Amino acid sequence: MRFVTFLQNGFQKIGLVTGEGVLDLHAAKEALGISVNLPESLVEVIEAGDSAIDLVQSIQKSAESSKYILPVSDVQLLAPIPRPRKNIFCVGKNYVEHAKEMKADKPPEHPILFSKAPTSVIGPDADIDSHPGVTEKIDYEGELAIVIGKKAKSVKKEQAYEYVFGYTIINDVSARDKQFRHTQWLLGKSLDTFCPMGPVLVHKSELPDPQNLNLETRVNGEVRQSSNTSLMIFDIPTLIATITEGTTLEPGDIIATGTPAGVGMGFEPPRLLQAGDVVEVEIEGIGVLRNQVK
Amino acid sequence: MRFVTFLQNGFQKIGLVTGEGVLDLHAAKEALGISVNLPESLVEVIEAGDSAIDLVQSIQKSAESSKYILPVSDVQLLAPIPRPRKNIFCVGKNYVEHAKEMKADKPPEHPILFSKAPTSVIGPDADIDSHPGVTEKIDYEGELAIVIGKKAKSVKKEQAYEYVFGYTIINDVSARDKQFRHTQWLLGKSLDTFCPMGPVLVHKSELPDPQNLNLETRVNGEVRQSSNTSLMIFDIPTLIATITEGTTLEPGDIIATGTPAGVGMGFEPPRLLQAGDVVEVEIEGIGVLRNQVK
Repeated sequence: MRFVTFLQNGFQKIGLVTGEGVLDLHAAKEALGISVNLPESLVEVIEAGDSAIDLVQSIQKSAESSKYILPVSDVQLLAPIPRPRKNIFCVGKNYVEHAKEMKADKPPEHPILFSKAPTSVIGPDADIDSHPGVTEKIDYEGELAIVIGKKAKSVKKEQAYEYVFGYTIINDVSARDKQFRHTQWLLGKSLDTFCPMGPVLVHKSELPDPQNLNLETRVNGEVRQSSNTSLMIFDIPTLIATITEGTTLEPGDIIATGTPAGVGMGFEPPRLLQAGDVVEVEIEGIGVLRNQVK
Repeated sequence: MRFVTFLQNGFQKIGLVTGEGVLDLHAAKEALGISVNLPESLVEVIEAGDSAIDLVQSIQKSAESSKYILPVSDVQLLAPIPRPRKNIFCVGKNYVEHAKEMKADKPPEHPILFSKAPTSVIGPDADIDSHPGVTEKIDYEGELAIVIGKKAKSVKKEQAYEYVFGYTIINDVSARDKQFRHTQWLLGKSLDTFCPMGPVLVHKSELPDPQNLNLETRVNGEVRQSSNTSLMIFDIPTLIATITEGTTLEPGDIIATGTPAGVGMGFEPPRLLQAGDVVEVEIEGIGVLRNQVK
């Protein structure tokens, strides 16, 4: 299941990407005469747990090749979770070569966790605001993001994947000047539009090895980041175990797992984003998240 | 208006603290036969803006000394905003003497902003979990908190107070070991129960000079922090202007404005919190926020 949130005639809806297009889940459910309730948003589907997933699967089976599949070009995709219920958890310097390019003396001994405000989230193809007068150093960071499936506290590494719902892509856009000026990173990471997310939220059943995915970031078609999630310093189970050691994670919570080497700041001289630039983050098995700086 | 959120017979309700007790706003509205809708939560009241405030004022006027005023001892106060819709914005080292006790070389040149997860919020008299095995260094930080009243972006200092709804108290409880081990402060600040808030949310009309309030924190009755909000390095207008430079603030957003000197880590040797300790944060014009460590 490859979940999407999309806009159709001004309404926010949820769907599945299939071979033919986007399956409108509520329209298909109605047409099939299924009376069981399906939540309106993906966060609520995640919260509803296995019963909602079973329902989605049965809708998908019955509706395949039906008229409730819309051409992808007919819908406007939003971020799979357009309005997270709390800040997005983000991991800093989680790839050795990236830690080096950011002039770290050595790789971190413990995960570095900071957050991005939910107001920063935008969807695929939405514009990244260049915030003239606010920042002059906009950078990209392509990242695999984990979406939590159920309430999680004191999770052991061995059980960590039980708490995962699925995966998406986040571009952790960063205002480097603000990030370092304020020493803690919240402000430099939370500018409006600085959290492109999507294009789809892939259920974990379709991505059995999230710790071995190629990740590539391109700016105007030129490859800037090319790595694999196997190179994370702190792997997905370690991140979930570390966060839930005292802090409860909830369904729909999002963890951006850090970016590999090749960010704009890592070049000498730096190659930061300018208005007009198109950034694409591609992760194997998920898709391409494309946004332009305006 | 001194707003509270409280539990009565298992239901979460909103009210006003008056001289006689807690005025149950919905019960009073019903009894008075007022048909206009009043939102169920304080965040929604804030969002609804002036019309909701006018309604609350008219209920208060008509209902004073009525039977809809409950003795404070009969209700369980919750945090005024028990579940913020995003992380709480927090300011680090915003008092000169506190920056010194935290071994900063000099006071910060720009505000230091980080966040606490909304899952960390607890109300007055709720217990702070000592998280045995997770942290051994729990510290208190008494702080004035601002609650935002309306959508705010690119706010000029001179207009900042127009965007404020009111004020409450936050104890920015901190796991010092986790805070420094992870270098960014999110995890050390976001443990469950580490954000006591309340007891009331005071509307700005009742607190005309928030930048001149005495603040005192006591542990088991002993004064540890004693300062005044006039001593903030970055004042309230500067904080609002700084955050909204690129990041939209929304109704119900909370900014904890930083703590003065006297935290447990500031003593030699440190005087951190232990199970059984009672922490009280008192701010002039707001009240006393009291919590015990369990």
